[in-house]
Amino acid sequence: MEKEQRIEHFNVDLGCDLDCANCEKYLECNAPEKIPSYERKRMQKAREAMGKIKKKVLVIGGKGGVGKSLVTANLAGALAMRKKNVTVLDQSFDAPVVCHMLGFSGKKLTVDKDGIVPAKGLLGIQMVSMGLILEEDEVLTWFHEMKRNATEEFLCHVNYGERDYLIVDVPAGTSSDTVNLLQYVPNLDGIVVVTVPSEVSQAVAMRAIMLCNKVGTTVFGVIENMRGFNCPGCGNKVNILQTGGGERLATKMNVPFIGAIPLDPRVSESSDKGVPFIIKYPDIEASRVINDMADRIENT
Amino acid sequence: MEKEQRIEHFNVDLGCDLDCANCEKYLECNAPEKIPSYERKRMQKAREAMGKIKKKVLVIGGKGGVGKSLVTANLAGALAMRKKNVTVLDQSFDAPVVCHMLGFSGKKLTVDKDGIVPAKGLLGIQMVSMGLILEEDEVLTWFHEMKRNATEEFLCHVNYGERDYLIVDVPAGTSSDTVNLLQYVPNLDGIVVVTVPSEVSQAVAMRAIMLCNKVGTTVFGVIENMRGFNCPGCGNKVNILQTGGGERLATKMNVPFIGAIPLDPRVSESSDKGVPFIIKYPDIEASRVINDMADRIENT
Repeated sequence: MEKEQRIEHFNVDLGCDLDCANCEKYLECNAPEKIPSYERKRMQKAREAMGKIKKKVLVIGGKGGVGKSLVTANLAGALAMRKKNVTVLDQSFDAPVVCHMLGFSGKKLTVDKDGIVPAKGLLGIQMVSMGLILEEDEVLTWFHEMKRNATEEFLCHVNYGERDYLIVDVPAGTSSDTVNLLQYVPNLDGIVVVTVPSEVSQAVAMRAIMLCNKVGTTVFGVIENMRGFNCPGCGNKVNILQTGGGERLATKMNVPFIGAIPLDPRVSESSDKGVPFIIKYPDIEASRVINDMADRIENT
Repeated sequence: MEKEQRIEHFNVDLGCDLDCANCEKYLECNAPEKIPSYERKRMQKAREAMGKIKKKVLVIGGKGGVGKSLVTANLAGALAMRKKNVTVLDQSFDAPVVCHMLGFSGKKLTVDKDGIVPAKGLLGIQMVSMGLILEEDEVLTWFHEMKRNATEEFLCHVNYGERDYLIVDVPAGTSSDTVNLLQYVPNLDGIVVVTVPSEVSQAVAMRAIMLCNKVGTTVFGVIENMRGFNCPGCGNKVNILQTGGGERLATKMNVPFIGAIPLDPRVSESSDKGVPFIIKYPDIEASRVINDMADRIENT
């Protein structure tokens, strides 16, 4: 009699065939053969390209649409308002929205003899994004090798120069795109985790934090986006998307909870218009949370 | 004198080396060598596995977090309430939240001699999802070959049986994951597009529609999620995330606009509790929009 079996493993090959670039155990593996020499060369290039950047921060979320780009844009704004030199690296190739949020629409990346030249925008913020290469109505299907090459291109062949901060908008998910970034950003200083209140998002965010724990990077803290709404008509506070998921996640993963960005028309309106809310509305609750995160990044 | 150059192309190889699986021109290409025989065999398997499903629908959004899983769960609920046999195929491996939304938490996929057996849930809905294989605190880094294999596994080796509907939750983005799906789902009946009101999301959704246009599939219509909020305190309607992006997208792409799902605590609360709003609150505005989309799918 045939018995039903629970599926325990799924397409995971446990043997080592030294195909490191495609191996799901890459991060944990300590085998000396791990990194092929061409990879070492590229990593060395990334180290050189980013050698004069003082702090490097990754903004991750696990799930898409939780507000990584929003937090990236406003963190860049907050640090730039403190007279820091900030470069934003947008690795979210499928949804390169952070350049729109920071008012870079219509600008383009250029190349000169020293490599790719970041575009320059408000408060001296510099930007490297696929959104500054593609036309708006251009569809580009990313095949894995192209994506990997583009990731490396943005890490190794950009003339970053001397900067105080690099803020990286990381794509959703915990796939090889994210691992490539964790591998290639040299001397990463830490990560910022963005989530939304709903329970369904926490499992995904947790997986992303666990992935970062594997490489032993600092978690600056968790921001919960879209928590609660204060009605401008009656002053009532309504928790449209439930509440507290970010706090519970931070407690569970033993990392700091920085604060919650409420649902607020001023938050999304300023993003659509290309000026981060931190600049346009520096005194709203959302800006306070971003500034708390910026403090934490500056002082850690 | 060296002049700055705009970057026109980026890592796109224009020559043909017959490496079809990794080619960015796959969808447009008509070369007879296009599909290697092992691919043909797998496609044949997918055709057989899905041969007794009457209608197959993909739910896409381009950007993450716009509500694809929410719409998938509720469309499945709406069709099941009409006494249809519905199977949900969750291809969103990085964020397999649709199983939670339909109350499948804790259930697991099994295998028997005929392949993977979908899990069974409320109203007879069946589910195939990575969320029914992984433990909640398990982190799995998806490398491209694993993802491709898992996609094919779910298309070729599931014992779907006789069903009225297959609703597929498609991952965010326009990368090879999406192309694999468009390639492998045989006799696709059409797609449902989900977007949010903000302008920054429309460019991403448009790219996803253009990708589907390339394979010539029907667009059933666009749903705009998170439009407006009716305050329960004062009855004021506030457009927290701006409004109208979905309608403008539909007009621009010449596809039907079906309606807008408002921000509503009952919508997210029911998702978190594992019962779709269409079942718990069949008379709210959000349910009306889902039913309009279900009508359209049934009558097209």
